Amino acid sequence: MNEFSIIEKFFVKKKNRPDVSIGIGDDGAIVSVPMNHELVITTDTLVNNIHFDEKTSPENLGYKSLAVNLSDLAAMGATPAWFTLALTMPQVDENWLTEFSHGLFDLANAFHVQLIGGDITRGPLSITIGALGFVPNNGALLRSTAKAHDNIYVTGTLGDAGFSLKNLDFARTRLDRPTPRVHEGEKLRGFAHAAIDISDGLVSDLGHILEKSQKGAIIFVDQIPLSDTLRALSLDKVLPYALASGDDYELCFTMDENKKPPIECTLIGKITEDAGLRLEFSDGKKYDGKVDGYQHF
Amino acid sequence: MNEFSIIEKFFVKKKNRPDVSIGIGDDGAIVSVPMNHELVITTDTLVNNIHFDEKTSPENLGYKSLAVNLSDLAAMGATPAWFTLALTMPQVDENWLTEFSHGLFDLANAFHVQLIGGDITRGPLSITIGALGFVPNNGALLRSTAKAHDNIYVTGTLGDAGFSLKNLDFARTRLDRPTPRVHEGEKLRGFAHAAIDISDGLVSDLGHILEKSQKGAIIFVDQIPLSDTLRALSLDKVLPYALASGDDYELCFTMDENKKPPIECTLIGKITEDAGLRLEFSDGKKYDGKVDGYQHF
Repeated sequence: MNEFSIIEKFFVKKKNRPDVSIGIGDDGAIVSVPMNHELVITTDTLVNNIHFDEKTSPENLGYKSLAVNLSDLAAMGATPAWFTLALTMPQVDENWLTEFSHGLFDLANAFHVQLIGGDITRGPLSITIGALGFVPNNGALLRSTAKAHDNIYVTGTLGDAGFSLKNLDFARTRLDRPTPRVHEGEKLRGFAHAAIDISDGLVSDLGHILEKSQKGAIIFVDQIPLSDTLRALSLDKVLPYALASGDDYELCFTMDENKKPPIECTLIGKITEDAGLRLEFSDGKKYDGKVDGYQHF
Repeated sequence: MNEFSIIEKFFVKKKNRPDVSIGIGDDGAIVSVPMNHELVITTDTLVNNIHFDEKTSPENLGYKSLAVNLSDLAAMGATPAWFTLALTMPQVDENWLTEFSHGLFDLANAFHVQLIGGDITRGPLSITIGALGFVPNNGALLRSTAKAHDNIYVTGTLGDAGFSLKNLDFARTRLDRPTPRVHEGEKLRGFAHAAIDISDGLVSDLGHILEKSQKGAIIFVDQIPLSDTLRALSLDKVLPYALASGDDYELCFTMDENKKPPIECTLIGKITEDAGLRLEFSDGKKYDGKVDGYQHF
């Protein structure tokens, strides 16, 4: 198979969004952004043996490659619309491509996003997806707009993905098939002051909000939402995962303390005028466990 | 250095386009597409030892990674505006990053395109750029709209890039620093019926126009424009390069035979109602040399 027949067999789908004039098959794709909306763009790469390994099925890999990008759009409050796929692989393996594309389109179809182009090249396995969406003008959620006294919330539960990486008998669903919080992000427009998705760990990602907003925060570590499995273990054991392990793809956002969030979420702390991140228990005791963010290098 | 300090040191530039609300540094970038314009998107990957090797300097690699993408936008008649960079590299080499970013921004600045985001990951060296631009509504140049009796033109000269790959004492400028025909593409809007950029070789790329337009063509091989260096050699020797070697990044376009092209270019053939591509000399003699397009797998 050559590049063109691979694309035709595995990646060209008949369903087309009405805002796509030209999809796969020309030098570029042509799409229309709705009136009074801005375009939001994000891109993420997954590299073999760095971001995934042989324990990740091709199907889950296809799913996750798109999920991490939709999660970034969700963190901006954007409505996802289209994506590109740059797929580098050592050889043409039709079984692998079948499974990979199934996982990819499972998620694409769930959120009505259309593959509009890409590049297929030979080389060490790696997947770069570019995802595009839109927000009403000036409606995006940013990292830089947290305000002092804001409440800090997170969606879902934290730590499961990281815990499953280190504890091999634990289900890897959260790690392999994270749910991008797209609908939650959209609902937060007009409510949240600042938002980010938790890909590198709560402390690290909330740190970006604090740095860009020039604020500090206090997190009540015993208020961090945990899955039943993690809650059954000692807090000492699970807090390092909940605070610092990545790949959860939940949203962390800040909101006026007098307003009620429009989505299911958990209050975990407060934004402070003073810089720095304090980790405490609700009774005021300082948390003194070790906390690392994911280091890309 | 970690991902964030690498981005800060080598990739964040102070110059910002007015249509960029949020560039590097949030979960995604936010940009505005002008009223009554469509968005054009393309993406291309360059992989170490496949698309380039140790003879390509980091500076030229930075330049070329963007050039191949701007060339795709040019082939659509689009005005380039923004790009994303997904850079995967085995380790942090500050000298390499300095040179790479110089080459990249040399070209970006020349065409006023802004880097708005990306991803930096560890792994085998590979560069995926996503480039975005815009065209007036319904103004894009497509592959699918060639008409019978159209003249076929190409910009510049063909075969130099491929010739330099095989003849090591020949200057590699055309191979390493191709000029994306952005201004030519823009000027062809409203004139050309169909267009493509020559990345895989004239026969292969014109073949896409023919397939998508459901037409055929005749190319007069002795009318293909050649550089002085190639013209000094025997036609037998250079035609395989001019017809079938890639990496020239010139535009090939078709136009009403009664209209005059608005740019410098060379007439090389005609679109025919009958399918198939005929390669002939101007005196009617059939060209019987071997012709291959670049095979990605």
